[in-house]
Amino acid sequence: MEETALHPFDRALAFEPSGPGRWRAHTSGDYANMIGPFGGTTAAAALAAAWRHPQRQGEPIALTVNYAGPIADGPYDVQAEAVRTNRSTQHFRVEIAQQGAVVSTATAVFATRRETWSSLEAGFPQGPGAATLARMPPIERVRWTAAYDMRFVKGQQQFVQPPPTEQDSVSLLWVRDEPPRPLDFLSLAALCDVFFPRIFLRRASWVPIGTVSFTVYFHADGQTLARIGDAHLLGHARSHQFRNGYFDQAAEMWGPGGELLAVTHQMVYFKE
Amino acid sequence: MEETALHPFDRALAFEPSGPGRWRAHTSGDYANMIGPFGGTTAAAALAAAWRHPQRQGEPIALTVNYAGPIADGPYDVQAEAVRTNRSTQHFRVEIAQQGAVVSTATAVFATRRETWSSLEAGFPQGPGAATLARMPPIERVRWTAAYDMRFVKGQQQFVQPPPTEQDSVSLLWVRDEPPRPLDFLSLAALCDVFFPRIFLRRASWVPIGTVSFTVYFHADGQTLARIGDAHLLGHARSHQFRNGYFDQAAEMWGPGGELLAVTHQMVYFKE
Repeated sequence: MEETALHPFDRALAFEPSGPGRWRAHTSGDYANMIGPFGGTTAAAALAAAWRHPQRQGEPIALTVNYAGPIADGPYDVQAEAVRTNRSTQHFRVEIAQQGAVVSTATAVFATRRETWSSLEAGFPQGPGAATLARMPPIERVRWTAAYDMRFVKGQQQFVQPPPTEQDSVSLLWVRDEPPRPLDFLSLAALCDVFFPRIFLRRASWVPIGTVSFTVYFHADGQTLARIGDAHLLGHARSHQFRNGYFDQAAEMWGPGGELLAVTHQMVYFKE
Repeated sequence: MEETALHPFDRALAFEPSGPGRWRAHTSGDYANMIGPFGGTTAAAALAAAWRHPQRQGEPIALTVNYAGPIADGPYDVQAEAVRTNRSTQHFRVEIAQQGAVVSTATAVFATRRETWSSLEAGFPQGPGAATLARMPPIERVRWTAAYDMRFVKGQQQFVQPPPTEQDSVSLLWVRDEPPRPLDFLSLAALCDVFFPRIFLRRASWVPIGTVSFTVYFHADGQTLARIGDAHLLGHARSHQFRNGYFDQAAEMWGPGGELLAVTHQMVYFKE
């Protein structure tokens, strides 16, 4: 397949092997944030290193990515090591570095699933369908917002003067890759980070922020993701608390048929 | 201070230096689980390695511990490395090994906090006070349950025949170390894992389970923990979904005055 035929997300995650379990990657202008790359693509790159590891077995169950330092536009190195492989689970340690300096540490747990008794307890958020909503216009200064089709049911941040401040930090939105791309674990990991920092809703301003730690628990298997294809997912996000420079953010990612695909949490630094 | 004067939790986390950022530790019978040690003490040991690291600065913000393999009763080695130190944040990689085999991988983020605009969005769960409730009798086959004073408002698992099955996996309980011990980051990390596997509530049986990944986000600073001292904390836990061998578990840990001290999440394997 030609470079040009690749989806921008796949171009952003194009790796060149540079050693055992080691790859050279490059930040992508398509997923540029105000400074450096969109954290979702960094998380996807960390997961990709484990996913593409020659010894990898099973599918992702848990991913934690810590954002240790800024990533400059340009090349970076991703290293994944399978530190423990059991019969049905496998544990990876991943590190992302740039010019020798660690910019991200990560761990990933993979597993081979079996069919068991299952039960969905969380409620599928109710709201109008994606087709009935307008897409949020991409935000110029946040390039990666053009790489997603986001349609808000609730909690779309407004960057106007005077800034309205929301009573809570809850957002509910339909979201998919733009252009459409069949869902996989890598894009799902990135989609788990599309929620604007919750403090933007509460303060309605560009408060300087930075995620320090990000975790995704995968409830869906590859078959479920394949069935969903390039449909919009329904994301629900909220914070429990903002306190002395840090807030947490918890979210659920749902398939259009009410499948809970993943739950995700992050801890975010903010400056005020 | 004599060994015997130490609280059982401090004895369980007694480290002997064995190298730079490296310690030899020992599992404690006081915190024995059905097999191996209580996962909360393992998480606390991982955090302790970063907390006690000579280069450590600030207080914990985020901790992720992956349970890669079983820990046998006896000695184990904990290694912490400060992989990146910034002006106000510091990132640690931690590894726990036993006889050279990795049994746990972990990452921890520390930070120096400043006073900022703060807001608590989550609601303090309502319920009767700890003093009005009876302590759950420790469970013989689960030694660590004797190391905590747990008083359930809702969702106390019943191990009787026939097993009653709950409609949901929600538990609300007051909990503190037993004997009482002043709260600190290490004991808070362990307390974040006292919630019985949610599937026990739904299936009301000893389904074989094992946490694969566990994350704690710390909202409280050391001063807040010191103020709470050895009072009971109010913990609220629930699952979003149980599916094909894995379920997630999300919880909040509250101080008696309505302070949200930490939010915690874990992904748990189960066999049925």
